Amino acid sequence: MITSDDVFHIKNVLRMKSGDEIIVSDGVKSFYSKIIKITADAVFYEITKEIEGNYELPFFLTLFQGYPKGDKMDDIIKNTTQLGISEIYPVLSKRSVVKIEDSKKESKLARFRKIAKESAEQSERNKIPSIPNIISFKEIDVNGFDLLFFAYEKKARESETSDFKEIIKSIKPNMKVGFFVGPEGGIDDVEANFLIKMGFKPIGLGSRILRTEMASLYVISAISYEWEL
Amino acid sequence: MITSDDVFHIKNVLRMKSGDEIIVSDGVKSFYSKIIKITADAVFYEITKEIEGNYELPFFLTLFQGYPKGDKMDDIIKNTTQLGISEIYPVLSKRSVVKIEDSKKESKLARFRKIAKESAEQSERNKIPSIPNIISFKEIDVNGFDLLFFAYEKKARESETSDFKEIIKSIKPNMKVGFFVGPEGGIDDVEANFLIKMGFKPIGLGSRILRTEMASLYVISAISYEWEL
Repeated sequence: MITSDDVFHIKNVLRMKSGDEIIVSDGVKSFYSKIIKITADAVFYEITKEIEGNYELPFFLTLFQGYPKGDKMDDIIKNTTQLGISEIYPVLSKRSVVKIEDSKKESKLARFRKIAKESAEQSERNKIPSIPNIISFKEIDVNGFDLLFFAYEKKARESETSDFKEIIKSIKPNMKVGFFVGPEGGIDDVEANFLIKMGFKPIGLGSRILRTEMASLYVISAISYEWEL
Repeated sequence: MITSDDVFHIKNVLRMKSGDEIIVSDGVKSFYSKIIKITADAVFYEITKEIEGNYELPFFLTLFQGYPKGDKMDDIIKNTTQLGISEIYPVLSKRSVVKIEDSKKESKLARFRKIAKESAEQSERNKIPSIPNIISFKEIDVNGFDLLFFAYEKKARESETSDFKEIIKSIKPNMKVGFFVGPEGGIDDVEANFLIKMGFKPIGLGSRILRTEMASLYVISAISYEWEL
């Protein structure tokens, strides 16, 4: 039985129902489980299968992803889930070509969460990344984050590109880390300044030009390499 | 005018013709160029545009990629090119579902090379990765390589996963480095032993299960992170 804040999250954010699958962790072990009943202040579930071992990154990692064109968001969710992301916010920024009507947000989110769930299971992860909402640039909430950075192409070819490595090395276990990746076409100066004011540090990612769907993979691969191997 | 071994490569391996675009480097600067004439022992070209700066990895990096299903090979070529790969060999291994008739090899190769060229230009690289041939597992030629490793899922969840980091850190400038990634379903014990005998070292890639199209991205991102930042 779940009685913590997660009840609100499961009911009102994820909008899950009886029969939906969740991953439950007691802090040591994790279990694939199925929801059997949701009441006002509790979620009842039955365990389907234990997940052996812990294959999660040792900190909480959030991707704020500028909403890209076509099906790229699907791929980004699938691939970053596989690499170990904890949370993903699709962000409609100025240069996002995509506009999403409020009426379509819920179906988009349901689709994204399904992709994350399937990819987490395929990769035998202990946790399914959460995708709380599709937000606008101004709705980015950095409360509670210990470390924030964003991929800034203007930085990519400057001589000083060691910032990223320094930032990655400064991560400590259980930190909450967030990073922003712009959509195709990157982010403009106004948005970059807005991010910097919110506490995001601009970083460069190697010396070649990476497309938006590759930037997040580069970041998480580097973090995993630095912290898991 | 090109008169080196590259003439053979351009004529007989890449089978390029007048009008085809190449990237020419004098060792310091690189130029987008167009072939204007090919003779028995020389390739004549004209420079279209100088590529400013050097955005290549400081060593030669070859991917031997177990041939995956569907269009995944296209994506792997596109994405690894973007991340800085030098050379790609699609390899038909035991578990490759794909069979390619000799008659179709040339058109496949032409398609792959076009993808590599376009991706190299988009990423503003100085070099287009070469894709010399589609080969069988037994045709892998390790002559001239200084360092070889392969992603082995049996290693991925062993406690000792630091081998990869050690290998990456042992790379030196101008080395020729090769790595093998299996197709979906990985590689079997016979193939793993064959690779080990050829000098490939088995390594694990973090603690989650990576699909074949992600393994190479993980490796190159990690290498770039270690060596470029």
